[in-house]
Amino acid sequence: MKKPVILINFKAYDTSFGKKGIDIAKKIEKISLEYSTEIIISVPPTEIYRISNEVSIPVYAEHVDANPLGAHTGSVTPEMVKDAGAEGTLINHSERRIRIDEIAEILSRARKLNLDTVVCVDRNELVKAIGTLEPTSILIEPPELIGSGISVSKARPEVITNAVEQVKEFPKVLLIAGAGITNGEDVSTALKLGAAGIGVASAVMKAKEPCKVVEEFVKSSLGN
Amino acid sequence: MKKPVILINFKAYDTSFGKKGIDIAKKIEKISLEYSTEIIISVPPTEIYRISNEVSIPVYAEHVDANPLGAHTGSVTPEMVKDAGAEGTLINHSERRIRIDEIAEILSRARKLNLDTVVCVDRNELVKAIGTLEPTSILIEPPELIGSGISVSKARPEVITNAVEQVKEFPKVLLIAGAGITNGEDVSTALKLGAAGIGVASAVMKAKEPCKVVEEFVKSSLGN
Amino acid sequence: MKKPVILINFKAYDTSFGKKGIDIAKKIEKISLEYSTEIIISVPPTEIYRISNEVSIPVYAEHVDANPLGAHTGSVTPEMVKDAGAEGTLINHSERRIRIDEIAEILSRARKLNLDTVVCVDRNELVKAIGTLEPTSILIEPPELIGSGISVSKARPEVITNAVEQVKEFPKVLLIAGAGITNGEDVSTALKLGAAGIGVASAVMKAKEPCKVVEEFVKSSLGN
Amino acid sequence: MKKPVILINFKAYDTSFGKKGIDIAKKIEKISLEYSTEIIISVPPTEIYRISNEVSIPVYAEHVDANPLGAHTGSVTPEMVKDAGAEGTLINHSERRIRIDEIAEILSRARKLNLDTVVCVDRNELVKAIGTLEPTSILIEPPELIGSGISVSKARPEVITNAVEQVKEFPKVLLIAGAGITNGEDVSTALKLGAAGIGVASAVMKAKEPCKVVEEFVKSSLGN
Repeated sequence: MKKPVILINFKAYDTSFGKKGIDIAKKIEKISLEYSTEIIISVPPTEIYRISNEVSIPVYAEHVDANPLGAHTGSVTPEMVKDAGAEGTLINHSERRIRIDEIAEILSRARKLNLDTVVCVDRNELVKAIGTLEPTSILIEPPELIGSGISVSKARPEVITNAVEQVKEFPKVLLIAGAGITNGEDVSTALKLGAAGIGVASAVMKAKEPCKVVEEFVKSSLGN
Repeated sequence: MKKPVILINFKAYDTSFGKKGIDIAKKIEKISLEYSTEIIISVPPTEIYRISNEVSIPVYAEHVDANPLGAHTGSVTPEMVKDAGAEGTLINHSERRIRIDEIAEILSRARKLNLDTVVCVDRNELVKAIGTLEPTSILIEPPELIGSGISVSKARPEVITNAVEQVKEFPKVLLIAGAGITNGEDVSTALKLGAAGIGVASAVMKAKEPCKVVEEFVKSSLGN
Repeated sequence: MKKPVILINFKAYDTSFGKKGIDIAKKIEKISLEYSTEIIISVPPTEIYRISNEVSIPVYAEHVDANPLGAHTGSVTPEMVKDAGAEGTLINHSERRIRIDEIAEILSRARKLNLDTVVCVDRNELVKAIGTLEPTSILIEPPELIGSGISVSKARPEVITNAVEQVKEFPKVLLIAGAGITNGEDVSTALKLGAAGIGVASAVMKAKEPCKVVEEFVKSSLGN
Repeated sequence: MKKPVILINFKAYDTSFGKKGIDIAKKIEKISLEYSTEIIISVPPTEIYRISNEVSIPVYAEHVDANPLGAHTGSVTPEMVKDAGAEGTLINHSERRIRIDEIAEILSRARKLNLDTVVCVDRNELVKAIGTLEPTSILIEPPELIGSGISVSKARPEVITNAVEQVKEFPKVLLIAGAGITNGEDVSTALKLGAAGIGVASAVMKAKEPCKVVEEFVKSSLGN
């Protein structure tokens, strides 16, 4: 992951898969190339292979299961997403929470696979707890602001500054901020507060013109 | 689904994904073509697109989530697997059990998508309960025999005959038997007991020569 | 369970346990005795012993786990709630959904223990499915109306009439209606539509004068 | 909690509830009084009120749910177990794992209620993570040894020494060791390795003479 991190989570919107998913991925790639900046997209498991074969930007999984390979019908393991083309994975998103032993297990497996990890937390008390497990990054998102259009940067800046402060104990771990990020100002504020990047979903996936939104985010992240 | 149903569940074995997954899918396709018989494979979500583009046999999902499209990070919906190339899906496998309201929800969505459905149950009391929801098929598998090498056909034939009897109330629903199916005799016994087909996993996925095993199953299913 | 069934679910309100829980249970008992009608209360597991020792009305559990007795830390089994004084249990409430194999397992164990069972469903398609498992009763509750103050009787009477129609196939099974039941008219309408009784929670547990509400329900259920 | 901690988890054995549960609790109390040493018992939610009214030793819950008070059918909250007589609670036992946000939520509520907390972890990597959340104690139990009769003290002493080392960073947090503890030597070894106490279940609950086992544990913990 390169700073400033811009992570766009496709979730399960109707624009997240199939032709629409590829279309939006390509638009994001175009902006990434134009501004020579890294933009990461996390996509449904069914789309990892397809999208990672269509675009050059990093594709992440939205979730992986902790169970080992074997007789586990319906599971999506770190090994599978890596093989399908993912360079990283979200872990413990507030819409797909898992147990702490599963987080530890996945981080250990991901490390061996050289898979980047973004562990999501919903509160400041968990930043250190997850920090001790040394993921690539921690994404802090107050759940009540997710999809709200009210950004963490404006509504709860102390969440970011506190998390940034705590994560300093773990110099290799990046702190990303998310929830309600809607416009360029939300992005630049988050970065000014010390975040290494931002996470976003609905503002892009539900936008009439996703390109414009992403471009605004990128410009703001680059200080333009 | 065509009778006799042969359903090979890839699960999450190390042979289930990537090149190995495609390799085994192609071997199964070859036997399917050679014997002009339908063989269905259910594969991890990451593999649906890839494998369904490589083989002509029906590819199913191993599991789908019931949540609607929208802000649901990490979910695999019926719409996604259909778009990726799946013709059907397993539901409620003993290794991925879901709630009954989720089963009803998925069946309703799958019907609209023209996606075949295989609802797994672990006991005879549930055959009628699931029958009332009219899936394409019901796969009965006593969990204690799954992966055991001791087949339901031999160890608990009454499970099959009782399920076959109960499912008669729902003429459109096929009854498939599974758990511990290891050799051709297990297959032919299951069919003689009235099952419309068989489900299998470890006997194929962990075999040194999967082709031989699948060929034996197919021959037995065709009465050779 | 005796018709008309009046089932008051304590849930986890701050009035549901401790002294407040006993207080409200006693008030309900008083009305039950005054009108010589059965009123069932379902209470948290910590309260079953205490409340059932303080009142003579039937006390039910709100939920039981399906696992057998043994090394299962934190579970509440049918055997435990029976021993603690429960005469029945809710199963699969929309706030505590379980899998269908768990429902079947619990029903089987409850039958042996002579424990009444109220299986909750959220939609009409599930009435027959659960009916085949022969619980003592089925409580149908459209989840969107639970706690809304808009009653199923008024907003969606067809949910009740359809469920009543379907449950006729299972003559021993009682059909109870719930969700948003707020006043006496909601109760009498539900019964007129054919329900064997009603389920209620917030209208009583959050009431300033629970007695008045319960009394109104009882009067309406008795046709006064 | 007082050192050396002896924590006996009742789980859901047939000896854990009703008259048998009270009987075993009283036997444990007797030994506790005889040796003037604290012995903690964790019991099913249905038994907290009953057992805590019968014995003077500390009674803990085996699990609590993280949801707030309100419309949450079937839940057991910290407030309920406290009111019923519990002085503490197990959290995240390997037989009842929860999410890390739930652990944080429960710890915060338990602190306000003055309820002791024992957070269980299955591996050394999680000691620091949980330590940052400052529970009263951390119980480390390699799951493969639970109920095995092969003690962590003998089979994996490095698990204990490593955990003891890590927990030093959190001076208020006690480190308890568990899994397979069967005899007095297992207890004294665990304490010599630096554990503040031990956790045990099957060795007592499935014993023909629980008294003897508990007495042996207590003697060993006191260095006799």
